[in-house]
Amino acid sequence: MINTNPTKGMRDLTPKEVELRNFVKSTIFSVYKKYGFSEIETPSTEDINLLTGGNGGDNEKMLFKILKRGEKLDLQSTTTENELADLGLRYDLTVPLCRFYANNRAKLPSPFKVIQIGSVWRAEKPQKGRFRQFTQCDIDIIGNKKATAEVELILATSAALVEIGFSNFKVRINDRRVLEGLANYAGFEKSTHDKVFIILDKLDKIGIDGVANELKEAGYPEDAITSFISIIEKSTAEKLTIERLTALLPDLDSEVLAGLAFVTETVASQANGKYSIDLDISLVRGMGYYTGQIFEVQAENYNSSIAGGGRYDNLIGKFLKESIPACGFSIGFERVISILEAQNFEVPASGKKIALLYDINIAAFTDLLLKANELRADGNIVSIETKSKNFTKQLDNLVDQGFNFFGVYDESRPFEMKPLSKKA
Amino acid sequence: MINTNPTKGMRDLTPKEVELRNFVKSTIFSVYKKYGFSEIETPSTEDINLLTGGNGGDNEKMLFKILKRGEKLDLQSTTTENELADLGLRYDLTVPLCRFYANNRAKLPSPFKVIQIGSVWRAEKPQKGRFRQFTQCDIDIIGNKKATAEVELILATSAALVEIGFSNFKVRINDRRVLEGLANYAGFEKSTHDKVFIILDKLDKIGIDGVANELKEAGYPEDAITSFISIIEKSTAEKLTIERLTALLPDLDSEVLAGLAFVTETVASQANGKYSIDLDISLVRGMGYYTGQIFEVQAENYNSSIAGGGRYDNLIGKFLKESIPACGFSIGFERVISILEAQNFEVPASGKKIALLYDINIAAFTDLLLKANELRADGNIVSIETKSKNFTKQLDNLVDQGFNFFGVYDESRPFEMKPLSKKA
Repeated sequence: MINTNPTKGMRDLTPKEVELRNFVKSTIFSVYKKYGFSEIETPSTEDINLLTGGNGGDNEKMLFKILKRGEKLDLQSTTTENELADLGLRYDLTVPLCRFYANNRAKLPSPFKVIQIGSVWRAEKPQKGRFRQFTQCDIDIIGNKKATAEVELILATSAALVEIGFSNFKVRINDRRVLEGLANYAGFEKSTHDKVFIILDKLDKIGIDGVANELKEAGYPEDAITSFISIIEKSTAEKLTIERLTALLPDLDSEVLAGLAFVTETVASQANGKYSIDLDISLVRGMGYYTGQIFEVQAENYNSSIAGGGRYDNLIGKFLKESIPACGFSIGFERVISILEAQNFEVPASGKKIALLYDINIAAFTDLLLKANELRADGNIVSIETKSKNFTKQLDNLVDQGFNFFGVYDESRPFEMKPLSKKA
Repeated sequence: MINTNPTKGMRDLTPKEVELRNFVKSTIFSVYKKYGFSEIETPSTEDINLLTGGNGGDNEKMLFKILKRGEKLDLQSTTTENELADLGLRYDLTVPLCRFYANNRAKLPSPFKVIQIGSVWRAEKPQKGRFRQFTQCDIDIIGNKKATAEVELILATSAALVEIGFSNFKVRINDRRVLEGLANYAGFEKSTHDKVFIILDKLDKIGIDGVANELKEAGYPEDAITSFISIIEKSTAEKLTIERLTALLPDLDSEVLAGLAFVTETVASQANGKYSIDLDISLVRGMGYYTGQIFEVQAENYNSSIAGGGRYDNLIGKFLKESIPACGFSIGFERVISILEAQNFEVPASGKKIALLYDINIAAFTDLLLKANELRADGNIVSIETKSKNFTKQLDNLVDQGFNFFGVYDESRPFEMKPLSKKA
């Protein structure tokens, strides 16, 4: 007998699961579309050199590589893994977007406001809530160097989350240049900053004392650690304003501060009490390609982030002869789905879902079909089903499948439709 | 500089292309949903053994194979290609569906009416209109052995094609058992049937004389060829009815004939003059797994088929200890898209698409955002854009992007929205 499990770490999605995913996708998509973004698609595979070029951080270690085909594959003389593979499955949508933009720039408007919703693949160790194939849901603005791009991305993403049903979430915002300023001011050597930020990034998990301990264990100067931790603690003591930030880190560039002030004030003016935006100098975001503001959305009552993004002004420049500013925001689609599933979220019904039952020996099958189409023309979902012997059980099963009406078709009687719900 | 082309044989899809594809997908999906089908998803990858198990015909030769990872990959002791790969990208949606059904059967209703819309991959020689990653769009009914399944599939698919805008298309229908009967009656040896059918399958391309010639060249008995060609010619001389078919091939099983009569008559009763259904004993369909009726849709004015399917009662049995009847119909999504693109098909506009232009030095950016949201709340698409110096050119570019209204936001004047169209 053949093994019928899906690929390790990947999932078969049942109708109920796909229904929720489709609802969330189409909600996000329609909000993004209303904000003037339009969708593109790139292939699932990219050249192996692109995917191992150093822009994907740890994701590059989790690549699904695709074997060369035909004559290109020479098993005799091949000694290394990379000689065997010419393609890989994409691990994110940002690197393919940069390649797409460089390849299609002449056809695209500037600024280019773009949606991508698609699968990405990472050969991670399988664990709860982590899958080797999962959906990403990104918007990006390419070609706008001003912070109006950050504002549009945060407003559109927040609007999408509100439309799905999230409220009271928190948009945390920082700037990579503030992080640099913080590390400099504390006295960490420039060459150690990235490693310091990797430890700071664990703050949500290990707490401020945990961060201090790990920095000590890593052997950084004690006075730098003390100063670093102290500034972070002061910054979180009460709501962080631009004024307080300026007082804490007096060396910060005024343009960086003006950008943060513009984005936080503008977003706050549009939030209508449905969410907040908070300066947070401990926000790191993993990817090395960020160059300016970075942001993350934290859902109420959930510790982990449901969206994240930032400005990456130098990444597209690697593909073109000139530098192109860019900024993006990605909704953690799988996280959103698992939160909704944990809340037993029900996809809003659109119209009736009718089971049209008939006796298997029916003579008037064509009349039954006409009746079904008549009901469909009224906007209903109609599934034709043979009436089974165990009728009560059949009705229960239909409820499980989401049907909320049924009718038994009998050419000798007028058709009657009845609401359907499970016996208590 | 990095190569910015998409993977060979695959495509970058621009906003205009994705918009058309999304329209066609959502049209098909909403019709299928109304007919009571529900969507599932399976991973893009499957176990290499499943994909090379003999159910994919020539598609198995075009596999994108995925390299084993970590310790599983042993380059030193590996000598064959298949030892290197543990997964492959799926080449169709039917084989994964059978695995899915076997794996999830306990959770699924019977009969199970299922939609799949997704990418498949085949490392074909790149050529016009053929891509190495493309979308398939399938419906299947699993667990209904009666021909009502065929009727539902044909009606739902025809309704979807009508909804997209196709008319006067032809559903050609045959039965693998009629083909067998034809080959037997003509006098071909049983063991040669499959090869004879492969030649017959070229009829659309090489004509009836071409088929006769190829059969001769392959060395088949002349009297069998003469009889075979003569029956096919007679069958197409006028519209083929069940009566004429019975006269041409008197040995056919009465149940097979009854099935064809039921499906053709029932479908014809629902077609409303928008399409026709025609018996066609020369229809072959490539895949070896078909066991009963097979069908294909031919668009008006286009030689090639835009949908195809049939009954495959033995395929799922390979994954389970019992045999499960199944029947499917697949819309040739890429073919449909290329026909619509060739016709310069325009996606119907839903609401206004407004470019909200502002001077880059605007003081009232938050008011502009509120205005944009007010317009969005009315159901419009609103993109905020900075007003450029070359205003006439900007308006032309906006038309190219599909905008049909614009307004210049100026806090000192009442807002005015104007229709947008290209200067002749």
